[in-house]
Amino acid sequence: MTNDVNRVAHADLVRFITSAYHAVGIPAADAEKAAELMAASDISGADGHGVFRLPQYIRRIKAGRLNTRPDIKIIRQAKATALVDGDNGLGSLVVSRAVEEAIALARDNGVGWVGTRNGNHAGAAAVYAAMPLQHDMIGLYFAVGNANHLPPWGGIDMLLSTNPIAVAVPALAEPPLILDMATTVAAYGKVKVAAQQGKTMPEGWMIDRQGNPLTDLNRADDGFLLPIGGYKGAALALMFGLLAGTLNGAAKGADVVDFNKDDTTPTNTGQAICVLDIKAFAEPLAFKRQVDAVIRQLHGSALLPGFDRIRLPGEDRHQRIEERRAHGIPIPPELRAALDKMAADLAIPPLFA
Amino acid sequence: MTNDVNRVAHADLVRFITSAYHAVGIPAADAEKAAELMAASDISGADGHGVFRLPQYIRRIKAGRLNTRPDIKIIRQAKATALVDGDNGLGSLVVSRAVEEAIALARDNGVGWVGTRNGNHAGAAAVYAAMPLQHDMIGLYFAVGNANHLPPWGGIDMLLSTNPIAVAVPALAEPPLILDMATTVAAYGKVKVAAQQGKTMPEGWMIDRQGNPLTDLNRADDGFLLPIGGYKGAALALMFGLLAGTLNGAAKGADVVDFNKDDTTPTNTGQAICVLDIKAFAEPLAFKRQVDAVIRQLHGSALLPGFDRIRLPGEDRHQRIEERRAHGIPIPPELRAALDKMAADLAIPPLFA
Repeated sequence: MTNDVNRVAHADLVRFITSAYHAVGIPAADAEKAAELMAASDISGADGHGVFRLPQYIRRIKAGRLNTRPDIKIIRQAKATALVDGDNGLGSLVVSRAVEEAIALARDNGVGWVGTRNGNHAGAAAVYAAMPLQHDMIGLYFAVGNANHLPPWGGIDMLLSTNPIAVAVPALAEPPLILDMATTVAAYGKVKVAAQQGKTMPEGWMIDRQGNPLTDLNRADDGFLLPIGGYKGAALALMFGLLAGTLNGAAKGADVVDFNKDDTTPTNTGQAICVLDIKAFAEPLAFKRQVDAVIRQLHGSALLPGFDRIRLPGEDRHQRIEERRAHGIPIPPELRAALDKMAADLAIPPLFA
Repeated sequence: MTNDVNRVAHADLVRFITSAYHAVGIPAADAEKAAELMAASDISGADGHGVFRLPQYIRRIKAGRLNTRPDIKIIRQAKATALVDGDNGLGSLVVSRAVEEAIALARDNGVGWVGTRNGNHAGAAAVYAAMPLQHDMIGLYFAVGNANHLPPWGGIDMLLSTNPIAVAVPALAEPPLILDMATTVAAYGKVKVAAQQGKTMPEGWMIDRQGNPLTDLNRADDGFLLPIGGYKGAALALMFGLLAGTLNGAAKGADVVDFNKDDTTPTNTGQAICVLDIKAFAEPLAFKRQVDAVIRQLHGSALLPGFDRIRLPGEDRHQRIEERRAHGIPIPPELRAALDKMAADLAIPPLFA
């Protein structure tokens, strides 16, 4: 299956990303770790957050505006919290360091909360929220998006981002429940993927500055994303953005750098991770059994006309991971072309030999 | 102004609620504390969560199914977490105890997370999320709603509630930012208030079991609330409901008691509060100044056609508190009649002499 021109094996993708990172000066161990974290977005179906972003990351690194040898360190701490300075390194390395710290803090204290500053775009939120699961812990992750595509409710100045919220809760026999959502109806990554594939947008994703629906992807720059639930989604973006950004001394509001257009200004991206140790509240085995029961109860609901099943958060992700582990990760032709060009520029072997 | 038949002074409302609680056997200090917490919903405009609920609380207490002398205590703890058992006492007393504990934990550890079980409906989420503000702390509050009005996405069995999410962040010169939202387009309290006032519902609040819009309040039992952002809102309700309910050993899913219809089964309501001490991450004064700057920046946005201002979370609440402190809390005729009847039953002085 991995011979299929459109699909690549996970290990091959990791190898490719590693060699690209290594080619621009990232030390081997960091390059491999960051590659694993990027490919974790791809294998789980977060196609707007994985290797799709690699050429953009590489451009920024080649412009000298992303630190390939960052000194990622804790600059402020309390007994159960820490503030990590990412020293403008790869977002994945900064956030994974924060998650590791939060897991250690939660082990000692029941809960750990770690914020980041001076990071960068880190990929799919679910990747980080899910890390605590294997420790019988719950993860909550908030981030400031790397481009402002959302105005305050009632406004047209794009001062907010799609700030994602992710929550991961383990089950026992069932797949874990993992919510990873933009606070907008569509994530901007989805808009970018649709644009690359030459599609149009459904109504409800974006409106223009007059408040009219915007579906033409060529006009995406003339409008902005719609928040979920109107003012509620804009408020979620604001409040969790304050926790991920402002509280950590990271960019927020007008300070946010549009990293889709600007490869040179440091983004000072902020994220926050909160980890809860289940055993501080309940016996983990009993808790996970109860989560199974909740999942089965919800699956058992009678259906609304037009639906063929109840789809719970994390379920599609889980199925995609299984499918892509077995059959490889699909790489659309436009993405393959972009990656081929990047590989040629970096003088590394292409993704598909 | 407090002579106006439709408005009551805050202090008079607190006195009235205190005497009602006292009349059904709640000790004086608890009655007064719970009355203050209930009136905090009323004065801030959360009309579906304050004294509107009192007759229902009193019915439950008179039925002997809410503990008037609970032993509210911590039954499990880690260094920065606690699990509070409310012993089936008034929700306000259980949650306020949890918040006090979380504030103390955050002072020592930078963050504190406290869950509750065996509590009851506690009123507006914002009341509790806002408590840490005066300590230069940030509050996050999640609760399992006290009646299931939401099916899983794509289903028709009402297994989820409107599970609210509240986040409160202090500013310096500006009012604090306080988000308090149901994960449904409309909170069920709003539906109840509209029903009591003989109104109809706008489209988009509820649908019936065939998926058609439901606007007739007399048919509210035939349908269910719509989540914000479709599957996203249902997922928020599920995930934060797991943190507030299942993790704490409180009711969740089919176990949730519809306390609007059932005055006798213990509700085993669960809530969760997370408190962050700002100084663990930033200098509080500088942080609050930055929040001011964010607020002013958002307010300064150019407007979308049809809007006359940017409305940020907590702003309306703040204005209502100021207005109601000055002019009293409006009590609609239907509510006054219900309270008069309750007062007569309890042989206490009516709200309006």
